[in-house]
Amino acid sequence: MTLIKMSTNKTLKGHKLAILSPFAKPKEFLEQLRKEFPDLVADYYQLQWGQTTAPFPPETWKDITILLTFNILPTPEQAPKLEYVQLQSAGANHVLKLPIFADTEINFCTANGVHGPQISEWIISTYLAFEHHLPFFLEKQKQGTWERGDSNNIEDGLGKTIGILGYGSIGRQTARVATALGLKVHAYTLHPRNTPESKKDSSWTPAGLGDPDGVFPSKWFAGGKKADLRAFLASGLDLLVISTPLTDNTQHLIAAPEFKVLADAAAARGGRKTYVSNIARGPVIQTEDLIEAVNGGLIRGAALDVTDPEPLPDGHPLWTTKNVIVTPHVSGASTAYATRVFAILEYNLRRLSEGKELTNRVSRKEGY
Amino acid sequence: MTLIKMSTNKTLKGHKLAILSPFAKPKEFLEQLRKEFPDLVADYYQLQWGQTTAPFPPETWKDITILLTFNILPTPEQAPKLEYVQLQSAGANHVLKLPIFADTEINFCTANGVHGPQISEWIISTYLAFEHHLPFFLEKQKQGTWERGDSNNIEDGLGKTIGILGYGSIGRQTARVATALGLKVHAYTLHPRNTPESKKDSSWTPAGLGDPDGVFPSKWFAGGKKADLRAFLASGLDLLVISTPLTDNTQHLIAAPEFKVLADAAAARGGRKTYVSNIARGPVIQTEDLIEAVNGGLIRGAALDVTDPEPLPDGHPLWTTKNVIVTPHVSGASTAYATRVFAILEYNLRRLSEGKELTNRVSRKEGY
Repeated sequence: MTLIKMSTNKTLKGHKLAILSPFAKPKEFLEQLRKEFPDLVADYYQLQWGQTTAPFPPETWKDITILLTFNILPTPEQAPKLEYVQLQSAGANHVLKLPIFADTEINFCTANGVHGPQISEWIISTYLAFEHHLPFFLEKQKQGTWERGDSNNIEDGLGKTIGILGYGSIGRQTARVATALGLKVHAYTLHPRNTPESKKDSSWTPAGLGDPDGVFPSKWFAGGKKADLRAFLASGLDLLVISTPLTDNTQHLIAAPEFKVLADAAAARGGRKTYVSNIARGPVIQTEDLIEAVNGGLIRGAALDVTDPEPLPDGHPLWTTKNVIVTPHVSGASTAYATRVFAILEYNLRRLSEGKELTNRVSRKEGY
Repeated sequence: MTLIKMSTNKTLKGHKLAILSPFAKPKEFLEQLRKEFPDLVADYYQLQWGQTTAPFPPETWKDITILLTFNILPTPEQAPKLEYVQLQSAGANHVLKLPIFADTEINFCTANGVHGPQISEWIISTYLAFEHHLPFFLEKQKQGTWERGDSNNIEDGLGKTIGILGYGSIGRQTARVATALGLKVHAYTLHPRNTPESKKDSSWTPAGLGDPDGVFPSKWFAGGKKADLRAFLASGLDLLVISTPLTDNTQHLIAAPEFKVLADAAAARGGRKTYVSNIARGPVIQTEDLIEAVNGGLIRGAALDVTDPEPLPDGHPLWTTKNVIVTPHVSGASTAYATRVFAILEYNLRRLSEGKELTNRVSRKEGY
């Protein structure tokens, strides 16, 4: 990828930035921008939550060169000087078909990386809560009873294996924490990553976190075929994390045959079964098959922040399936979301001022 | 410390090891010992749980040179050749006054380090469960209701600070995981650790875990005075972990004045209060003061695996104090306990065979 029609200079002279965001005005951040890029004109427009129309008349677009937004976008004709759009979502699906993206070469960048810390925390937290019988102890606490239950069977993570299906920003940060806990990491990606260079991930990551160089996996599986996936699932996984985007290819990726692979692999290595964690999208798992797999003892249980259907209706059997934790699609929630979006914008402004390639740039060929 | 009256050679010729343990016979481990030390005579005696008498006649002691045990011990007269006792507990309090320890120079080593993985998991797990509102969501799941509650206020750990009071094997492993999550680490120890050498910890740690070199803390506090402790407590802690032994000096170490220091420090930096985690011993915290501190909003809440009194009686107010998680002294539970005790024994046998100093040796001067 090369920089396209970006006007670059140290102080960002000639640039006009518009920030369209429902987050409270980030005074310190704007102050920081003024210091770092003294010639940058920056306007902050605080939106209502859910607002989908621009907070200014259409002619305001014409001088804007940089835009931070979720889904309020100009037409190509309205914004002839626009060079760089920073989305405040991790995904870009919602812009792919708009003329401002499809018919131009304007740089669109996602907020990929904002979710790594909180979602990896959710994954680790629900897994450890399950392993350490926390739901049981919280119940006993409610009853006011000091009861150790089945605590002789508590297993810690040292020497166990986590399999991460989709090794992006969330998977990589999860690998970092899992490694610190003493787990081995098996990664799975669509495309092979056989060289040190290909193992790298250049998308934005908070400093010191994630796995930008791809060093944590002791085994790395890849390939788009069922057999490739099954080799990964058969590699001896105590915890399987699903952190892959939902596409036509990943719909029902994990269904009855895959649960059977997990169970067979567990039997082959002496019985310890897999716990499944899904923070991607509900339909990546075939729900009925998951319930059967848990009830039939093919897997140990599951932590699900996403479900299919979603929201999970009252009375759905998943609510009461044993050893399943369900939360209502909250793993991405973090009060630091806005701060991290602004950090990505600032990072990319610095890259722009230095004439370097922007991070998290959406490829027009791949669509993400 | 120097080796005392240890007979050392590569194959451990002349040595007789007796293992007295309630754990199932570890066949692979014994096989491994045979390979590694072909001349070592090793006898495994599986005990009943709670058994306090030797499983053999008194004259069997006379040839034993190495003993793994919890509390079954010979007199000095019964075991004239005994050189090294590997305890299978992390503490040594129960042997300090016995003649076999007090009146001899036999090497006693603890199983210090066996608890790091599982207890740090308990600390991280309860903290993240609290931050991610897991008790709330588990409750909603029981009601079968998809309800996000207060999820807009979920805070992740990136950039937060963990304070670790007592930087031993548990504290160091907790620091490793917290660092991977993006938290800053503040350590507190009784004695100052101002040099790289003094920051080290030579006690046993599973390979790749813990913080043997003491590199994780960005600030290191020390000292036995109230003012020293308070400087640490005032350093801006989002999470305070209590992982110090219970001694006369640490009884009620954290009481009303200390909670006030935490609250004042929180106010000074804009309001975010401390969450307290206790995996040490209940009496390190003054229980009534803790309840008042939570109810009065001086701290955010607490996770307690140990309580005072313990077991916590039915009807005790701690059971129902808001934002408090109580578990019945289970954080040290792990199915890997025996494996790690045997790993320490093997490590020390290797050290012995190489004529090196044993790890986890109990100092007769310090008593631990």
